[in-house]
Amino acid sequence: MTVQAPSRPSSGAPTQGVSAERTPGGVTAAQRAEIETARAAPPLPTRRPTVPALEEILFQPLPVLDHGFVRVIDYFGDDGAVVQAARVSYGKGTKKVSDDRNLIRYLMRHRHTTPFEMCEIKFHVKLPIFVARQWIRHRTANVNEYSARYSILDREFYVPVPAQLAKQSQANRQGRGEVLQGAEAEHALAAIESLSAEAYATYERLLNEDMQGNVGDPARSGLARELARMVLPTNYYTQWYWKIDLNNLFHFLSLRADAHAQHEIRVYAETICGIVEKWCPLAYQAFRDYRMTGAAVSGPGLVIIRRMIAGEQVTQESSGLSKREWAELMAVLGRPV
Amino acid sequence: MTVQAPSRPSSGAPTQGVSAERTPGGVTAAQRAEIETARAAPPLPTRRPTVPALEEILFQPLPVLDHGFVRVIDYFGDDGAVVQAARVSYGKGTKKVSDDRNLIRYLMRHRHTTPFEMCEIKFHVKLPIFVARQWIRHRTANVNEYSARYSILDREFYVPVPAQLAKQSQANRQGRGEVLQGAEAEHALAAIESLSAEAYATYERLLNEDMQGNVGDPARSGLARELARMVLPTNYYTQWYWKIDLNNLFHFLSLRADAHAQHEIRVYAETICGIVEKWCPLAYQAFRDYRMTGAAVSGPGLVIIRRMIAGEQVTQESSGLSKREWAELMAVLGRPV
Amino acid sequence: MTVQAPSRPSSGAPTQGVSAERTPGGVTAAQRAEIETARAAPPLPTRRPTVPALEEILFQPLPVLDHGFVRVIDYFGDDGAVVQAARVSYGKGTKKVSDDRNLIRYLMRHRHTTPFEMCEIKFHVKLPIFVARQWIRHRTANVNEYSARYSILDREFYVPVPAQLAKQSQANRQGRGEVLQGAEAEHALAAIESLSAEAYATYERLLNEDMQGNVGDPARSGLARELARMVLPTNYYTQWYWKIDLNNLFHFLSLRADAHAQHEIRVYAETICGIVEKWCPLAYQAFRDYRMTGAAVSGPGLVIIRRMIAGEQVTQESSGLSKREWAELMAVLGRPV
Amino acid sequence: MTVQAPSRPSSGAPTQGVSAERTPGGVTAAQRAEIETARAAPPLPTRRPTVPALEEILFQPLPVLDHGFVRVIDYFGDDGAVVQAARVSYGKGTKKVSDDRNLIRYLMRHRHTTPFEMCEIKFHVKLPIFVARQWIRHRTANVNEYSARYSILDREFYVPVPAQLAKQSQANRQGRGEVLQGAEAEHALAAIESLSAEAYATYERLLNEDMQGNVGDPARSGLARELARMVLPTNYYTQWYWKIDLNNLFHFLSLRADAHAQHEIRVYAETICGIVEKWCPLAYQAFRDYRMTGAAVSGPGLVIIRRMIAGEQVTQESSGLSKREWAELMAVLGRPV
Repeated sequence: MTVQAPSRPSSGAPTQGVSAERTPGGVTAAQRAEIETARAAPPLPTRRPTVPALEEILFQPLPVLDHGFVRVIDYFGDDGAVVQAARVSYGKGTKKVSDDRNLIRYLMRHRHTTPFEMCEIKFHVKLPIFVARQWIRHRTANVNEYSARYSILDREFYVPVPAQLAKQSQANRQGRGEVLQGAEAEHALAAIESLSAEAYATYERLLNEDMQGNVGDPARSGLARELARMVLPTNYYTQWYWKIDLNNLFHFLSLRADAHAQHEIRVYAETICGIVEKWCPLAYQAFRDYRMTGAAVSGPGLVIIRRMIAGEQVTQESSGLSKREWAELMAVLGRPV
Repeated sequence: MTVQAPSRPSSGAPTQGVSAERTPGGVTAAQRAEIETARAAPPLPTRRPTVPALEEILFQPLPVLDHGFVRVIDYFGDDGAVVQAARVSYGKGTKKVSDDRNLIRYLMRHRHTTPFEMCEIKFHVKLPIFVARQWIRHRTANVNEYSARYSILDREFYVPVPAQLAKQSQANRQGRGEVLQGAEAEHALAAIESLSAEAYATYERLLNEDMQGNVGDPARSGLARELARMVLPTNYYTQWYWKIDLNNLFHFLSLRADAHAQHEIRVYAETICGIVEKWCPLAYQAFRDYRMTGAAVSGPGLVIIRRMIAGEQVTQESSGLSKREWAELMAVLGRPV
Repeated sequence: MTVQAPSRPSSGAPTQGVSAERTPGGVTAAQRAEIETARAAPPLPTRRPTVPALEEILFQPLPVLDHGFVRVIDYFGDDGAVVQAARVSYGKGTKKVSDDRNLIRYLMRHRHTTPFEMCEIKFHVKLPIFVARQWIRHRTANVNEYSARYSILDREFYVPVPAQLAKQSQANRQGRGEVLQGAEAEHALAAIESLSAEAYATYERLLNEDMQGNVGDPARSGLARELARMVLPTNYYTQWYWKIDLNNLFHFLSLRADAHAQHEIRVYAETICGIVEKWCPLAYQAFRDYRMTGAAVSGPGLVIIRRMIAGEQVTQESSGLSKREWAELMAVLGRPV
Repeated sequence: MTVQAPSRPSSGAPTQGVSAERTPGGVTAAQRAEIETARAAPPLPTRRPTVPALEEILFQPLPVLDHGFVRVIDYFGDDGAVVQAARVSYGKGTKKVSDDRNLIRYLMRHRHTTPFEMCEIKFHVKLPIFVARQWIRHRTANVNEYSARYSILDREFYVPVPAQLAKQSQANRQGRGEVLQGAEAEHALAAIESLSAEAYATYERLLNEDMQGNVGDPARSGLARELARMVLPTNYYTQWYWKIDLNNLFHFLSLRADAHAQHEIRVYAETICGIVEKWCPLAYQAFRDYRMTGAAVSGPGLVIIRRMIAGEQVTQESSGLSKREWAELMAVLGRPV
């Protein structure tokens, strides 16, 4: 007997080291079997709000990058919970679907964010360490990460596909420019792979043990895990449970699904966008319209827009804006600088 | 059609003003009917962890004070989610039930708090404003409160039962001493009731409108709700949705279910303790043993305990502690000062 | 000898009950003397960033409403600290003043909020309870409030000036419409004052003690402070220390200095805007341009603006927007609906 | 003219790449000169609480590990600010130093944590990435980290001193056991150094640029910085500004200056302990007595202590505790298991 609810098999918690055979999506055969068993178990009855489209994909690893994934482990609330929270604040309202949609859009437009905090979701994510380092900067979430002080990390590291091997951007001090070509691209890939492989070989030598618990040289002690791990580069994969409310998740997505985000975190954010669209479709659409495809225009920018709508030919000089602010405003308006 | 899942009736969201008839527990007949309908609806199937003992009481108002209540509206996770989060951090472990219990107690003992953040619960609470003012000081929660800027507050105020009418404590600059007797108690109750009633009469006169929307004097405009409300005393009831993770809930309970907490918030905390015991029994037991009935002993205090166990007769003078620290240590040890 | 730095007198911490004589701005004569002494003390030398314009007003109560105030008690950082934090992230940059200004505006425009968290300020605020209840909803701040469990509250309550006595707005389900006239206004003021005065009389009768510690009827015990306070309406004043970083303060100000905020909290927010302008003038100007006078335009809204700039006569019907979204967009563009 | 206060030179913000010459403590000669200039500048007058012992070390890098440091950049409040905040809550109190000390100890003992939030401090820290990954898990702080998307990381990596090269602990699934001896230690050091050096060579080859901006092979584009960085192991140094209030700092220190913390983060925590002792000596002493050298004893544990003080010979069997809980209680009491 376990403490979990009866007839509820484990939903595929990470069990590194059980099997070294990789299957697509960074999931071992043993993990995949465990997930399938969990998904095949008879569902339990609940009085809680339930979202069939999300139940459909519950526990399933959605592959990201070469060995990463995102899985939904649990959720709480739906579009209705947002509406319910808003109505306790703002009083009675009509109950038709059009009103729910408009109410949610109103909340999003006016940054009435607390009703969106009434939805919560938990993910299991497998991701490179350098991505995890950006991700963790979002503080308003709950995290439990796989610990390399206790356990040995898998031999799994991220190598970009050639289309992502780009040079430093000239226009943007951060970010990428054109894609590398030919020999340079080949050499870059080879260099990343060979350094990563060598780092793992050093890691195993220091540990004097492999993931199956086989000791290397019986005459040696091996170095503590918390020390040996320091030689692994940040393209090695880690994993965690990550739990967050919908309001803070939207904030995360607005920064990380943005075109300025680094590609390697953006692909995770885009996968999560697809999940949120299933979970809370009205809230997601409002988020996309107001936060993803919209723009914040400054007070001076609004004055310029009014002049332009009135037919005036405004230039950077006559706008009063700095060159950079002018260029960004023109980009928002889809006009040449 | 509503945006909520099909066949999911509203679970009794606050609909003030629908009916002024009160029923026990501060719930109107209309609300009670709505709650009964929600509870009678066929349950939906889910793959999520489900706690039958909590499903049993879902949506039900548990009465607190004279017109207040606590209702569980939604939850997420269980004891198993705490264990799962700890294991992703600390690696594989045995799976027997005794291990889950010991693991949870280990986490509680060593203040490894993040696994407890993997459980989340949402309450609907009706409570006096002065209790709400203490409650809201716990910042790590999500709140949506009924707004008296938009809506008219009910004519419901808290009046203590005679056993709670106590004088100021002498020993403790905060808190209560002996219970008032006879005429003084009667006068105090009468004074609270009469002032509260008169405040509501002033409120209605200022609004020039009652909760059913009936206008008083057609020749008058009435004062805006956001202004009129200022005459209501803090024993008037408000209500909110309050969502929090289990770790932060334990922190709230450790302060508010404590003997030093004001009686009027402690009864809410005790009701919630009963709910958490149903929801996560292993975590709750560990919390009770380590945080509620245990004590934090200082380094100097530990030295004294060791001397006492070794048979020494330690006095305040020979302890090196201040009188107050000595008295508190003796209280922890159940010894006379 | 005190634990504070030598020659540093107390800066006017609240000492209720020392004197009942009120002076303008809700400060007693004794408090005012204490503040004057603190301000007259010789300044101490520091290596920390120092803002002369803020030192100028340090500790001084800036009056708000009829008995409230805001005082700056301490601060940390300046515009330079924002720049310094951004540069550790984004690397070397030019050092001219125009660059600091443009860098700060860039950070504000792109919601790179963490550098603004490097400035911190602490206020002492005296405010009505119903304002405190809105204010405290901003969770990312540190608060220590005067406790009516320990101490007796002053006989100070807020009564609006006649120009603020407005009826409920028809256009806006929240907020105020036209100002009340003549007899209705007079009766409203009288009703607020008389109820407030009667509540305090009840409070004192329940306590059987006044603020100077004089016992009323020696034959009675008096009710505990934590209970007696419940009869005071929410227009009574409380006070607290409130400490917040500049990023979260901007979020507070964007909501509370907004035209939709309730007048009684907006006047506090506007007073704080004036303080921030002295403290971090570049950050404040960027905040005003981007967050206060600017607007968030949705993706569909941007498409409409582009069509209008191109000369098209767009109507609500041809816009694809709902009536409400169309009306709000036209308001942003300063055009008739 | 700069936006910073007049005559306030930069206090030594990180300017990587200016000079590759290392000096002790991980600070370049150029940085050291900048720090010296800042410290030599005439102090400015302020009315704020000022702590001479902290001013003394302001901006100075305190070396940690082989290339790391901690520097105090700014601070806000002192022991007096804790007392002031407590007194606004709890009312008037005596003013003698013994009372301040006792009040602070009372707050610490009863976990009245909000007054400690009224002090704030900002550090500049240079630390290995694997330490930064543990550190950042403390969410209630403000952080601005040096960005390897914008800038090139220095060739600086952590190599443990031989006394820290320990094997995995047997008793503790996390942590270190005995120190490695002889050839194994030498090989481990050599392996860490050689892999780290090779990773940097790969990094530079991928970038096709060095920190001075010298392009390697003019025929190549070089890989974007945000990609190239992924080959650097987690023993490479990063740096950040880190700002936190005293209450949350105590929580950080209670976990990270603890004997169970990994050595490499504990040395940072211990350096910060020394700083806090200068800054808020009364609060620090209370923290040490109650949080560092004290222990949380469970309710069942207290019952056993009472039996032992009464002279009973309690054994694990007669205690009712599990073996592990018994062993930990005996450790707290300094007794053999």
